[in-house]
Amino acid sequence: MSNDLHTGFDETKYPYINKGLEGIVAFSTTKSSIDGQSGELIYEGYNIDELAENSTFEEVCFLLWNDRLPSQEELDALQEKLQTRRELPQVIIDYLHSVNKKSNPMAVLRSAVSMLSESDIDLPDDSFYEKAINITAKMPTIIAAFSRIRSGEKMVAPLSEGSTAYNFLYMLNGERPGEQAEKTLDLCLILHAEHGMNASTFTCRAICATMSDMYSAVTGAIGSLKGPLHGGANTAVMNTLLELAEQGENADAVAFTKDKLKKKEKIMGFGHRVYKVFDPRAYHLQKMAKKLSEETGQERMYKWSMDMLNTMKSEKNIDPNVDFFSATVYYSMGIQPDLFTCIFAMSRISGWTGHFIEQAKNNRLVRPRALYVGEKNKPYVSISER
Amino acid sequence: MSNDLHTGFDETKYPYINKGLEGIVAFSTTKSSIDGQSGELIYEGYNIDELAENSTFEEVCFLLWNDRLPSQEELDALQEKLQTRRELPQVIIDYLHSVNKKSNPMAVLRSAVSMLSESDIDLPDDSFYEKAINITAKMPTIIAAFSRIRSGEKMVAPLSEGSTAYNFLYMLNGERPGEQAEKTLDLCLILHAEHGMNASTFTCRAICATMSDMYSAVTGAIGSLKGPLHGGANTAVMNTLLELAEQGENADAVAFTKDKLKKKEKIMGFGHRVYKVFDPRAYHLQKMAKKLSEETGQERMYKWSMDMLNTMKSEKNIDPNVDFFSATVYYSMGIQPDLFTCIFAMSRISGWTGHFIEQAKNNRLVRPRALYVGEKNKPYVSISER
Repeated sequence: MSNDLHTGFDETKYPYINKGLEGIVAFSTTKSSIDGQSGELIYEGYNIDELAENSTFEEVCFLLWNDRLPSQEELDALQEKLQTRRELPQVIIDYLHSVNKKSNPMAVLRSAVSMLSESDIDLPDDSFYEKAINITAKMPTIIAAFSRIRSGEKMVAPLSEGSTAYNFLYMLNGERPGEQAEKTLDLCLILHAEHGMNASTFTCRAICATMSDMYSAVTGAIGSLKGPLHGGANTAVMNTLLELAEQGENADAVAFTKDKLKKKEKIMGFGHRVYKVFDPRAYHLQKMAKKLSEETGQERMYKWSMDMLNTMKSEKNIDPNVDFFSATVYYSMGIQPDLFTCIFAMSRISGWTGHFIEQAKNNRLVRPRALYVGEKNKPYVSISER
Repeated sequence: MSNDLHTGFDETKYPYINKGLEGIVAFSTTKSSIDGQSGELIYEGYNIDELAENSTFEEVCFLLWNDRLPSQEELDALQEKLQTRRELPQVIIDYLHSVNKKSNPMAVLRSAVSMLSESDIDLPDDSFYEKAINITAKMPTIIAAFSRIRSGEKMVAPLSEGSTAYNFLYMLNGERPGEQAEKTLDLCLILHAEHGMNASTFTCRAICATMSDMYSAVTGAIGSLKGPLHGGANTAVMNTLLELAEQGENADAVAFTKDKLKKKEKIMGFGHRVYKVFDPRAYHLQKMAKKLSEETGQERMYKWSMDMLNTMKSEKNIDPNVDFFSATVYYSMGIQPDLFTCIFAMSRISGWTGHFIEQAKNNRLVRPRALYVGEKNKPYVSISER
């Protein structure tokens, strides 16, 4: 806890101020469990390894919204709804064309998702499942459309078939993706879907707790994820790799990494606040990144990543986290680095809305206290005498 | 703490779950102090009574953003900036024309404020004071424009002179307001500017804590205030008064109130979670409401309010809160009841942004924990066998 310079108030003398609410348990949840000591991540009872190998993003959405896996019939019904609700309302298409093209993509996503609420004007307030589907279906369209429009290309209308991953890559690049690209993005969406009480999920639950609507909560969550202390790490990873790429195709990733370590520069994508062993998500992504690099011919980027990883391991004994491989993977798929946090949001929407539903079912207003450390009853001096 | 039906998990057995974070101190602040036992409200050292009688909304903005009252020169400079930054960017004007006219006004405000961020694309991230001015200057324009456009009227361009209150009423009604109306709205803006760690202010600080931008934090706060457990009480007060008004001009407010009490219907605008004595804000508003009713000729509504108040006092010994008189006051000014929460936001923006600045100066990521109460390592059964 730091000294608050602007008041001279010394927070360190007040140990009962739970700054950052660290360690305070505020909710019970079945959404996910993280055991950083053993590298275990569970969604709704299922180990992430099982889900990564057997499931799909759409199935994980059903799981997070219903606390159980779907039957084939239920999954088919959900997929059909997701496929047929991808089109954006005209008001958002107009906005994406008129917004400043230099805008931060997360700011654009925040505004567009906020505007989505008017599509559901006739749905009852508690149609949480339908609203979660609507937002999840339309977020990829918003991201792909903004990516194309700001580059001077025409937006590509969504398909009414195929997975979320397949359709997103199609809308983004204007051509149908390869099998490995679809599989890899689907895996990324599974791996980023849910991760305990992070700052954006907490924001989502806190907004839900005033009995506000799902659009308000998700808009707040996007705003929270936009912050560099939360989302954005994989963009930073990519920027490091692009810095390396500027040295030409024979760039030496080992020397580059050692040089950064020597200069004490922070290298993003390594280590994790929670995971003390290998991040289980990084393990699955690494396998996919290798296969994808073969499909897309981006083998050099994969090799550089492995060289960096091995150097970090031998020099610092630090393992990569989920952001490390998602960077190269997204880049190989034609996604621009400043959109990476949007891809994170496009996946995490499933966890956010799952938490919203859980909070709404068992709600209490979320409102901690603040300790007032200012003066009291200062005399009001008239402005001419100040 | 309630039993969570959807999991069968009984939270009452886990007293260390701080549901709603009630009583947990998460921040230190100089923004405001509330003493519910003595009915004392302080902003930055100054008692609300002093500010209500001597200050203006613009001066209170300066106070909340700078932790001190301005000199005349500083206040003049702030007022000039507020006056000259009221115009909306075209992208928002277009949005207000194309948005569904049945949209919830708080949802429209949330989207429009989110879109405001593109006006500041060239400002450095830490230009907090300038950004707070920009949002505060433009929010009234958004609200007045949406109010007129949805009624089929042309939006009125803002004046580049006059107070926030004066200009807002001018843009809303298309004519310059009377002296008492301006004074009363200015007082309302002072009285709603700041009120401790309520849910929207907390949301604002939690989003700020990821080092996200002020637009993200304020957009989240608007979404939080939109919830009926937070904003919206004064709309409910007005709906009660309009229900009474349907009985004609000789309606009996005393009998109406007693009847509601007999039917055990909740009467909004009375009692307060924090204030155990008279809400100091209600006291100031009551005085103004009387004068305003004389200026606008809405004396009947004022008389009904007083009859309700006296009945609640004699029957239940409950005092009115700040929402009670703000309802009739806003109504007298020509503000439609479903816009009342927007007026709340147009004032509270000063407190939200004040808290944002305070949080950014002494930041830590806000992230409590959740207790996982689901199963672990469930076997993944293939979909054909479910």
